[in-house]
Amino acid sequence: MPTVPLIEESAAGPEARAVFDDIKASRNTDWINNFWKALANHPPPLRRTWESLKEVMAPGALDPLTKELIYLAVSVSNGCQYCTASHGAAAKRLGMTPEMLGELLAVVAMANETNRLADGYRVPVDERFENLF
Amino acid sequence: MPTVPLIEESAAGPEARAVFDDIKASRNTDWINNFWKALANHPPPLRRTWESLKEVMAPGALDPLTKELIYLAVSVSNGCQYCTASHGAAAKRLGMTPEMLGELLAVVAMANETNRLADGYRVPVDERFENLF
Amino acid sequence: MPTVPLIEESAAGPEARAVFDDIKASRNTDWINNFWKALANHPPPLRRTWESLKEVMAPGALDPLTKELIYLAVSVSNGCQYCTASHGAAAKRLGMTPEMLGELLAVVAMANETNRLADGYRVPVDERFENLF
Amino acid sequence: MPTVPLIEESAAGPEARAVFDDIKASRNTDWINNFWKALANHPPPLRRTWESLKEVMAPGALDPLTKELIYLAVSVSNGCQYCTASHGAAAKRLGMTPEMLGELLAVVAMANETNRLADGYRVPVDERFENLF
Amino acid sequence: MPTVPLIEESAAGPEARAVFDDIKASRNTDWINNFWKALANHPPPLRRTWESLKEVMAPGALDPLTKELIYLAVSVSNGCQYCTASHGAAAKRLGMTPEMLGELLAVVAMANETNRLADGYRVPVDERFENLF
Amino acid sequence: MPTVPLIEESAAGPEARAVFDDIKASRNTDWINNFWKALANHPPPLRRTWESLKEVMAPGALDPLTKELIYLAVSVSNGCQYCTASHGAAAKRLGMTPEMLGELLAVVAMANETNRLADGYRVPVDERFENLF
Repeated sequence: MPTVPLIEESAAGPEARAVFDDIKASRNTDWINNFWKALANHPPPLRRTWESLKEVMAPGALDPLTKELIYLAVSVSNGCQYCTASHGAAAKRLGMTPEMLGELLAVVAMANETNRLADGYRVPVDERFENLF
Repeated sequence: MPTVPLIEESAAGPEARAVFDDIKASRNTDWINNFWKALANHPPPLRRTWESLKEVMAPGALDPLTKELIYLAVSVSNGCQYCTASHGAAAKRLGMTPEMLGELLAVVAMANETNRLADGYRVPVDERFENLF
Repeated sequence: MPTVPLIEESAAGPEARAVFDDIKASRNTDWINNFWKALANHPPPLRRTWESLKEVMAPGALDPLTKELIYLAVSVSNGCQYCTASHGAAAKRLGMTPEMLGELLAVVAMANETNRLADGYRVPVDERFENLF
Repeated sequence: MPTVPLIEESAAGPEARAVFDDIKASRNTDWINNFWKALANHPPPLRRTWESLKEVMAPGALDPLTKELIYLAVSVSNGCQYCTASHGAAAKRLGMTPEMLGELLAVVAMANETNRLADGYRVPVDERFENLF
Repeated sequence: MPTVPLIEESAAGPEARAVFDDIKASRNTDWINNFWKALANHPPPLRRTWESLKEVMAPGALDPLTKELIYLAVSVSNGCQYCTASHGAAAKRLGMTPEMLGELLAVVAMANETNRLADGYRVPVDERFENLF
Repeated sequence: MPTVPLIEESAAGPEARAVFDDIKASRNTDWINNFWKALANHPPPLRRTWESLKEVMAPGALDPLTKELIYLAVSVSNGCQYCTASHGAAAKRLGMTPEMLGELLAVVAMANETNRLADGYRVPVDERFENLF
């Protein structure tokens, strides 16, 4: 059970409703998932989070599928169940296959493994790796 | 200063040396970075980690740059300084531009933000998101 | 299902029972929540954890509500479901409103976002921020 | 050394400069800290992060000091050195004393301790703690 | 519900089946737990993960029970429910008693507590603690 | 540089001094490491943390070396530099060899790897693993 009630569209006030409408228009769907219904309890972060998400996930130097794969990878690594499920679904919609998911999880797992080896041995950063750009 | 001495090639035993040689051949370089020199203190994980890394990062359903971007994203999200620096350099070698890095970090930051909103509101997973494949 | 059985008051030994009695007296309630029933399987940490909690959460330079908000924020950030639920309830008892919860989660989310930007860019600490006190 | 160069005001383009000017005006200072100079390499997240921060940290149901204490607590708990230093300084400017810092860190430490006990014993959430609002 | 279907032995292809057979032989059991059935959706990481696990957990300078206790401690600290349950069971099979579990969780909790105090105070590493070996 | 000044013994007040004396007596040394000097800025958590540490790390169902190995493993997994260095030194004093450290880090790395695979595939806990004791 969630911490706060999930606000259905019919019960949403005008500020939340405007965000819901924009979500549906942007995604070309008539369905709102639970994350936004929970955020609708407190409209200012609902609006800000949705506006940021639209801007961050828009095509740019990275294509939308690559962005969703990164989003999913971080969510898995953080152990966030909801975001693993929702961004897994979003990545699948954009073309992620089971093989791609398998490889993504292998990279996430490997990164977590070597992150701890580097920290455990307190490996100093090589000079060649400093000042990347 | 590292937890263990960094083992230079000239001081490496035959098992570590064989791994160093394979790293140099695979990467077409004559340079070994500090991570492997630290692992060389205990050869079995050195060999296993290198073999796994080669296999996981090889081209597959995901291309090598996408894999490096995911590796970097997880390392940043975990706060691992060494891996952020080394996999940042690896991604740059494969074509990551400053714009791509900027967008990657924005996605990593956004994922960390919404992961906590979803956990804080204890949002239940929508039925449509279950059983992805 | 929990890792260990939840020890009800009627089944608790004298050491656990003494802690249960102090919890009920301190909180002016006759109800013990599951966390303490699980800890009662191993009385020394039960007693030590309860004594520390009483001392840490007592009014001091920070008032009890502020302390509970901090406790909740950390629990959300760590993705701990049980503590998010139990310290959410504790904060509500002390006066946390839905608006305060909404703002707290927005701060937690924002901190997680900028923590990763700072780590990803490996931003050096400004000299003015060193030696705080 | 940072991943990207720190962009000084004199070198900033018009989009970054506008954000720098707003930071200085809002904070009534002529000093920009390194975090913003790093973000200035990629202006869209610079602007978005600053706008969000202003909105999230503004007085509301929670006062600015309480918000900064929560921000600091999360940054400490995540092990982010830069944010621990910068938000420590911000909290001090708003009135945090050494005693308050000592109590804050004790709460952060205690929360991390009990989060792991609850997860390790896999304690089920009490029904009374569900549906907080 | 899992992200991917759990592959039962009767439905496994030859590569996954060979791993399942080796798991059963190595553990002297005829039962495969869900983790391996999920990994069987993508055989290369299934094989690599199993081979690594066998090698890492074999008796060496540390005995198998000590290794399982460390594995369990890390899984609890990461908040991974599945691994807390499965490695808790593995440790119990190797001799972990309820008292040992209680002491292990107390150490895990204490480490999480002091990790945050050290990070929050940004305590510099004592020279005596550098260059461990 | 630390967040607060490190309090040397000569500058410590009576409450901190009593803890320092007990640390030196318990450890049979005349040396205090930086962690305690930082905590001495706020005596109540200094005393409580030291009392808890003595109790938690005392010989019990687990021997002191096993407890230190677990403490070190969690500190590495959390990326806490100070605790990795200090508890690495403590484990070495109790008999940890370079081989044991190498195996410990391999287990920590492997646990972090499989924790993420289990979370990424959202593997349901097998019934046999429930209700451990």
